[in-house]
Amino acid sequence: MHFHVITLFPEIIKSYTSESILARAIKNKKIKVTTYNPRDFAKGKLQKKWPDGNVTTYVDDRPYGGGPGMVLRAEPIIGAIDKALGKNKGTVILTTPGGKQFSNTDAEKLKKEKNIVIVCGRYEGVDSRVMKVLKTCLPAGRAKEYSVGPYVVTGGEIPALIMIDAISRRVPGVLNKQESLEENRVSSSEIYTRPEVLEYKKRKYKVPEVLLSGHQAKIEEWKRRGKKN
Amino acid sequence: MHFHVITLFPEIIKSYTSESILARAIKNKKIKVTTYNPRDFAKGKLQKKWPDGNVTTYVDDRPYGGGPGMVLRAEPIIGAIDKALGKNKGTVILTTPGGKQFSNTDAEKLKKEKNIVIVCGRYEGVDSRVMKVLKTCLPAGRAKEYSVGPYVVTGGEIPALIMIDAISRRVPGVLNKQESLEENRVSSSEIYTRPEVLEYKKRKYKVPEVLLSGHQAKIEEWKRRGKKN
Repeated sequence: MHFHVITLFPEIIKSYTSESILARAIKNKKIKVTTYNPRDFAKGKLQKKWPDGNVTTYVDDRPYGGGPGMVLRAEPIIGAIDKALGKNKGTVILTTPGGKQFSNTDAEKLKKEKNIVIVCGRYEGVDSRVMKVLKTCLPAGRAKEYSVGPYVVTGGEIPALIMIDAISRRVPGVLNKQESLEENRVSSSEIYTRPEVLEYKKRKYKVPEVLLSGHQAKIEEWKRRGKKN
Repeated sequence: MHFHVITLFPEIIKSYTSESILARAIKNKKIKVTTYNPRDFAKGKLQKKWPDGNVTTYVDDRPYGGGPGMVLRAEPIIGAIDKALGKNKGTVILTTPGGKQFSNTDAEKLKKEKNIVIVCGRYEGVDSRVMKVLKTCLPAGRAKEYSVGPYVVTGGEIPALIMIDAISRRVPGVLNKQESLEENRVSSSEIYTRPEVLEYKKRKYKVPEVLLSGHQAKIEEWKRRGKKN
């Protein structure tokens, strides 16, 4: 599984994928994460050479029809997608507050892909022609727009990490025996570890007795009910 | 607004808050983000001194009643919350896949808080007595459990960043005039910037004519409809 992340802030992606389970999955070659900065794909008219030799690239510009903020230009994004996919097949995902709600079900389907390109939106969004081009040029269903929840965040980097994390956990060999997909745990509402009795501000908080009983059938029933005992 | 994040992976939090809008908000003293590592609050029996002078701290242990994985122990988390809040008032949020769905509405309410403590779950979860202690010791409604969406990720760090980002954007002075809360934009489905005509693989992709018309009333109507013209 190869994730390609198109972002103006590659450090955010690199920082998260260098920790914990994702770092191990990369080290063990179960997943690969590559970042692409749209600035590196801004060509021609999007570049201005200054007398001092510096080159400025324009990856964003004001929206047609007015409105606040800046819009990410289509060309650098499309250039980065071209570079990421090359001649390989893959799914391209645009992170956007108006997209379909991303869920475990999507993660389960996407874990079978060999290449997933995630375009991180920023500012007021990405020129709508990026999606039009993708829908014209990719096979049906290979261009997707996802939201990770009913809230607005500054950029698509954190949503991209959510998707990378949720999908990677389902790739065979990424989680070890000590770890679990957790979906099962959600149904059992409570979980406890040592000590048996926790004291805080003169009160005692105990582990439910059934969990200490060693009676596995009763324990499983308690977990299924998700009740306080 | 002071965010206190309790996490075993402070670098993930620090990396994101050192970029872009959040970095600027911190520099301008509109928000403050402090991290606390539960390892620093593991005391007594949770510490083992080895002959070579090293100290190992136990922040996690196996779940009572069996099951896969490890559970974060209550004491180091509660110690870190005590340190974070001190004698100040605040809301404590536990990130958990079983919590209430976090939304823009929650972000809007929470932006009025002076202190928000976010506990990042990890492994199989956090000992349930953390929430019991909080519900006993804090005023009603000050202990919350949130999920950021219908998917499971490895830890609460990314969900914590979602909440910090979504709440901070609503704190007065965090966004500048060029930026917007974007909620309004979601309803207009398309956005365009230069060039007027984008060429890709011999096809031409044009900006809708109405946006080039300069006729502001028609433009507003087009945006409201969220239609292709």
